Amino acid sequence: NQTFELDSNPHTRLNILTGEWILVSPHRTKRPWQGKVEDITPDNRPEYDPKCYLCPGNGRADGDSNPEYTESFVFNNDFAALLEDTPQNEMNEGDLLVANNQRGLCRVISFSPKHNLTLPEMSVEGITAVVNVWQNEFNTLAKKEWIKYIQIFENKGEIMGCSNPHPHGQIWSQSDIPLEIAKETERQKSHYAIHRTSLLGDYLKLELKKNERIIFENDHFAVLVPFWAVWPYETMIISKRHVNSIKLFTEDEKRSLAEAIKVLTTKYDNLFETSFPYSAGMHQAPVNNGDYPEWHWHMHFYPPLLRSATVKKFMVGYEMLANPQRDITAEFAAGRLREMSTEHYKNIKK
Amino acid sequence: NQTFELDSNPHTRLNILTGEWILVSPHRTKRPWQGKVEDITPDNRPEYDPKCYLCPGNGRADGDSNPEYTESFVFNNDFAALLEDTPQNEMNEGDLLVANNQRGLCRVISFSPKHNLTLPEMSVEGITAVVNVWQNEFNTLAKKEWIKYIQIFENKGEIMGCSNPHPHGQIWSQSDIPLEIAKETERQKSHYAIHRTSLLGDYLKLELKKNERIIFENDHFAVLVPFWAVWPYETMIISKRHVNSIKLFTEDEKRSLAEAIKVLTTKYDNLFETSFPYSAGMHQAPVNNGDYPEWHWHMHFYPPLLRSATVKKFMVGYEMLANPQRDITAEFAAGRLREMSTEHYKNIKK
Ligand SMILES: O=P(O)(O)O[C@H]1O[C@H](CO)[C@@H](O)[C@H](O)[C@H]1O
Ligand SMILES: O=P(O)(O)O[C@H]1O[C@H](CO)[C@@H](O)[C@H](O)[C@H]1O
Repeated sequence: NQTFELDSNPHTRLNILTGEWILVSPHRTKRPWQGKVEDITPDNRPEYDPKCYLCPGNGRADGDSNPEYTESFVFNNDFAALLEDTPQNEMNEGDLLVANNQRGLCRVISFSPKHNLTLPEMSVEGITAVVNVWQNEFNTLAKKEWIKYIQIFENKGEIMGCSNPHPHGQIWSQSDIPLEIAKETERQKSHYAIHRTSLLGDYLKLELKKNERIIFENDHFAVLVPFWAVWPYETMIISKRHVNSIKLFTEDEKRSLAEAIKVLTTKYDNLFETSFPYSAGMHQAPVNNGDYPEWHWHMHFYPPLLRSATVKKFMVGYEMLANPQRDITAEFAAGRLREMSTEHYKNIKK
Repeated sequence: NQTFELDSNPHTRLNILTGEWILVSPHRTKRPWQGKVEDITPDNRPEYDPKCYLCPGNGRADGDSNPEYTESFVFNNDFAALLEDTPQNEMNEGDLLVANNQRGLCRVISFSPKHNLTLPEMSVEGITAVVNVWQNEFNTLAKKEWIKYIQIFENKGEIMGCSNPHPHGQIWSQSDIPLEIAKETERQKSHYAIHRTSLLGDYLKLELKKNERIIFENDHFAVLVPFWAVWPYETMIISKRHVNSIKLFTEDEKRSLAEAIKVLTTKYDNLFETSFPYSAGMHQAPVNNGDYPEWHWHMHFYPPLLRSATVKKFMVGYEMLANPQRDITAEFAAGRLREMSTEHYKNIKK
């Protein structure tokens, strides 16, 4: 029997959170690139942009004006994908045409008044204020009994479809449980039923012991490249305590989470010396729908860049039609991120 | 009870092939766009490019030279994601770190000697020749008993990660059954077990009766926007006869398929008067693994563009973390594609 070479043989890895396999082709990085090269958006934004609908004092699409806010600022999305007053109803023709109405509420959070201040460039205190807003919003939305799931996320960078460069996040909450959450619930539930422990807690213990994919840890959180990562520099933040939602985080934990976010996003920026694009968001237990003791809070970061600030990984033909695929290994990516400084490259005099 | 308004209320629709729901937000198209606008790649390619590794006579990465071919040309991918001589092996640490080696073979098909000739601009005869190559390749690969699935696909356009503009497709074949095929097998099997008919056959009958999402049909194929489409102008080609792979297509069917591809891709190009990008590929039964009488051959087209040649749909934050989402409805998209001419815009004198 030959040995298993994770760093050179094509192989599949199991995503324990979804039950899905991903294809890894570690030998494929030598492929030349004659394809699309992204523009670098010049990062010379002013602190205040009179045309930005997120800057303090400016007008928004619904006719309102933003207050002269000094920390974060939250409001209902003027072009929400989900609406609160959607009638509940359903259709089903022969199990072939099947649809249900969906209620929801979409919120926007401007992270700070400054048009050009991204998370890695904010202070830990500033990020802690954002974590507080996330927690408050979560608690407030969870009071509406018809809401079953609350998705907190950020699209960062034009390449991730971010429609306004002013650093901001979104919260979409809705009356059904979305696909990814349903998958992760099922897998965590099965593990919990057998072991009476959290799947991610057990996984994190093993990863901390191996120390091959860990990028950073503090008292309350660990940052790692999951064994089954799909995006080249995909990472997860996992809470060391087994809690099922942000609602339960203490003051200490919120500050630790802010620190973990700052360290991770700074390393990201340093990797290709660019404002590193990603979509990131928390996964946590559904609300108003029972207990979910199996659920373990975590946050996913899905960044598209592969080789440089301008060459991304394309999840296209084979990936869309057959199976997610990656080239560099999770271990290689973790090594690169681990060796990055926690000091932002813009602050390092060359 | 209120009526169900597919064209105005946010709702979810079931993808009967995967069992997954998608979120539709039909009211959201009025959203202004301050985000990323794609460059239009100037389409002034020559018929022959001396630096292209797909043009006749030119050298390739492995040191070989292409023959002076006159129709299609097929060869093994010089940077294959899957390799034939990968050892079979597996690892499992506590059901937390789980991986398997994966064997495979990746082929590249140049559609024609001409560097600038895309499918919609080829003749039906020319496309029929490509369909013949697909069928031959499928039959040849299926003779290797270790191959369990053969994915035939095309990435078209820089925006879809196509690394060389010379029109070409790919075939990735492998020793396991990939994720999307596993999902579609399960759903088709359940339907077949109950009804003894093909899921897609029954679906197609209903769609042809309703005639709301049909774009084109000929004797052997129909082109439609599936009820559960995720990408703005996503479509499917479905064979009218219930066959489970391209192996079984007759000469008549192959010509009909070529016609359907020509009509669809021409309408696509006409929609925004651009060489319309997409990833497209066939789904069919696994090979060397039993019978699969439930499987019904079809081809998916996943195009990214939303509003124009330069504004695409981003499947990012919410979509990656929670649930696929679309803005315009399948019915609207089908209406737009139906009204497009079958004459290519480049040939219409203005
Ligand atoms: O094989 P190519 O054209 O070099 O590469 C393209 O298609 C592959 C299969 O969908 C993807 O894995 C790559 O990300 C994409 O850039
Ligand atoms: O809400 P925004 O920033 O206008 O839009 C962005 O995020 C949404 C949620 O991930 C996506 O549906 C959009 O495709 C994307 O452009």
